[in-house]
Amino acid sequence: MDEGTTTITTDGSQILTCDVAVVGAGASGLAAARDLVKAGADVLVIEARDRVGGRTLSKRLENGVTIDLGGQWVAPTQERVLALAAKLGLHTFQTFEDGHHSLLVDNAVQRLAEGQINEAADVHDDFWQGQTALEKLAATIDLEAPWTHPDAGELDMMTFSEWTDRTLTTVGGRLRMKMIAPAVFSVDACELSMLHVAFYFGAAGGFDVLTKTRGGGQDSRFTTGMQELSLGLARELGDRILLGRPVRRIVQDTSGVSIECKDAVIRAQRVIVATSPTIAGRIEHSPPMPALRDALTQRMPMGTAIKMMLIYDRPFWRDEGLSGFALTDQDVPQLMFDNSPEDASCGILVGFTEGSAARRWIDRSEGERRGAAVETVAGCFGQAARDVRDYIELSWMNEEYSRGCYAGVMPPGVWTTFGRALREPVGRIHWAGTETATFWPGYVEGALQAGERAATEVAQLLGVSKQL
Amino acid sequence: MDEGTTTITTDGSQILTCDVAVVGAGASGLAAARDLVKAGADVLVIEARDRVGGRTLSKRLENGVTIDLGGQWVAPTQERVLALAAKLGLHTFQTFEDGHHSLLVDNAVQRLAEGQINEAADVHDDFWQGQTALEKLAATIDLEAPWTHPDAGELDMMTFSEWTDRTLTTVGGRLRMKMIAPAVFSVDACELSMLHVAFYFGAAGGFDVLTKTRGGGQDSRFTTGMQELSLGLARELGDRILLGRPVRRIVQDTSGVSIECKDAVIRAQRVIVATSPTIAGRIEHSPPMPALRDALTQRMPMGTAIKMMLIYDRPFWRDEGLSGFALTDQDVPQLMFDNSPEDASCGILVGFTEGSAARRWIDRSEGERRGAAVETVAGCFGQAARDVRDYIELSWMNEEYSRGCYAGVMPPGVWTTFGRALREPVGRIHWAGTETATFWPGYVEGALQAGERAATEVAQLLGVSKQL
Repeated sequence: MDEGTTTITTDGSQILTCDVAVVGAGASGLAAARDLVKAGADVLVIEARDRVGGRTLSKRLENGVTIDLGGQWVAPTQERVLALAAKLGLHTFQTFEDGHHSLLVDNAVQRLAEGQINEAADVHDDFWQGQTALEKLAATIDLEAPWTHPDAGELDMMTFSEWTDRTLTTVGGRLRMKMIAPAVFSVDACELSMLHVAFYFGAAGGFDVLTKTRGGGQDSRFTTGMQELSLGLARELGDRILLGRPVRRIVQDTSGVSIECKDAVIRAQRVIVATSPTIAGRIEHSPPMPALRDALTQRMPMGTAIKMMLIYDRPFWRDEGLSGFALTDQDVPQLMFDNSPEDASCGILVGFTEGSAARRWIDRSEGERRGAAVETVAGCFGQAARDVRDYIELSWMNEEYSRGCYAGVMPPGVWTTFGRALREPVGRIHWAGTETATFWPGYVEGALQAGERAATEVAQLLGVSKQL
Repeated sequence: MDEGTTTITTDGSQILTCDVAVVGAGASGLAAARDLVKAGADVLVIEARDRVGGRTLSKRLENGVTIDLGGQWVAPTQERVLALAAKLGLHTFQTFEDGHHSLLVDNAVQRLAEGQINEAADVHDDFWQGQTALEKLAATIDLEAPWTHPDAGELDMMTFSEWTDRTLTTVGGRLRMKMIAPAVFSVDACELSMLHVAFYFGAAGGFDVLTKTRGGGQDSRFTTGMQELSLGLARELGDRILLGRPVRRIVQDTSGVSIECKDAVIRAQRVIVATSPTIAGRIEHSPPMPALRDALTQRMPMGTAIKMMLIYDRPFWRDEGLSGFALTDQDVPQLMFDNSPEDASCGILVGFTEGSAARRWIDRSEGERRGAAVETVAGCFGQAARDVRDYIELSWMNEEYSRGCYAGVMPPGVWTTFGRALREPVGRIHWAGTETATFWPGYVEGALQAGERAATEVAQLLGVSKQL
């Protein structure tokens, strides 16, 4: 370890000094720290939790299978995630989606041909033209500065719901389009600025890339869990990481910056805050944050989602030629995927309850949610669903240091009036975190990109040469 | 003073004990404290600033005239404000609005007959039917539980902008309707849930009551400033108020609650947090806040407004039969009122820059805003406007312990999915602040009502009898 001197203050707090402090040991903060260490800087990473990984959290079951309670999928275009996985020797495998998908509506299940949704031709055509319009729009957004789009004002004034009502004409087509909001953003369509939706799809590389399983955002998983990416980075950083240290206050002065956390003060030249804007907004600052930056952190709420895993002896749905993928008209879950291990040594379904549905169910007991989930799965795949071996869930809204997932979102009016405060450094403070990414924001890929970008900013200012 | 024992901890913090701690010495917290003291409880009020009054702040000029940099007006229906003013012997007087109003568009000024806006008949009729629709809708909202409205889902999914486009048919009518958003909420129409707009108008007693000067929300002012309401309450509470103590953390356990603030810990049976949800959301909690409450505080951003005062030797506009009230197509200010003292011993115009306009101007210098304001006033009232004696402004977004004004607002989707968390106590924590009011929320009247309601909740639980 090489983080400089350690002293003790009169009230018992440690004082640690370094060149750069990083707040948050999610993938973003760890990537920033890795790059700065490579560049020769003394770095300390300060993490509130007693673990690294942020919104990724993997758990090994008794049968040896690892499940992910947080982020879990990787897309073929997510180059940073794949490169890091390769470097760490992590094995990935494709999400199972062979066979028919299922659609549960009014307690009746329909089987769908692969990749298709049974719907009237007019609904199909309507959705298709809507998707095409969104795709075209997304391709026109400057991902560095969405607010510069010629129609930015109009798009940002409109919710995704409003845009859908204007652009699509059928009830079924609109319903299907609006369902994308909870599935992708874990909020409802009315909560999203259309400019944000266009930006988000643009930054992921398009509608298909973001929503599809094969070849898209849900393409592959990690045998030993996605948190391994952060654990691998953390091993490299060693005791530069301080766990269990929620940051309360950041004080900037002419000679440096002090980060006050539980029982310690870290003194640095620069600090990278690698959390969501919501969590960043809860840190006290001296001098206080500029108005625009503070107001932004009031306006980028975290999505609301509950992730649940139902564990079976076998992926029994496969016996009947079913993919395990289902859309339902139920809250718990609204959609599910086959999440079994690659060798199918047990059967696992992962389900999601998102947006307003998560708010309806967050205050109920785990037992109620388990009961509802089993009913829904039984509706989709029959009575065998009742022989569930285990039910494991995580409500990210309850996680004190995430307070929601998958990411912070932009309601109407925010991008155009506050967007420039998203990444702009404030004195000695630089901003990372997946919400600040321009490539796959909201995903681990975006977290890594944002961390690397913040590290570049800081390395240039410190005059160290970042070597990648 | 009677707040129980005082001890000193090992790290030098004071420990103070009381029955009820109140966080925030704005009108809401002070009203709660007053009621609880009356009921016989030991109370301590903990305030971050070195002053009381929250979003009211009065300043005495060298010429002896008092101006209000924060809330300043009182409506005839605001019974609590008026009763407190009477008790404190505060003098109020009606806002000057005699003569013609002015409208500045494209550098040309029009004089308007009193209370009228020059517009085509179709625009007038369109706006009128829109106003009537809003008035009728507002009257149907259950102010205790807006989310129970039969159309709550649809209304909450819609922005005020969207509702306006659907309900009004003329370009001019829509523009005029949407201008109400910055003027009343200090955000743009696209940022507001229609359910929130309907609730807010309902809670104030209707469209006319809220928007009118004479007989409405801008009816009268205080000769010695509106902050006097809080200063008067504070005198009554004496040294029960601790200033300069930002609260960092609230810890609840089986026997009480500890409020950790700068250099002190207050130990109480109950705590009333009398701040906006945004500011409340920045306090750390043990145990952590329940998910719904926390998520609400992520989603109720403060409005953005800059209030500016231009001070002249005389209210020269009155010489020409002008009221001083003007609407402009400029950002700085967008609208202005005659804010001269009752005896017209000097002339004062108060201007507002609100919503997205405030965000465009917040990063510029005071000098630039002053220059722009003088230009706009000159456009409205002629060259005499350039002889400005003083320019005084306050950007509430920069106030560390308010972070915006006039109040926190509800974007689409929040009321129906998080509204129940607005007032519901969390263990030993009760919620006051004007945002939790059901009568004139966003105003000092609402602040007082909310404080009284929270005091009643706590008094009942403590078994003391609240005597009013």
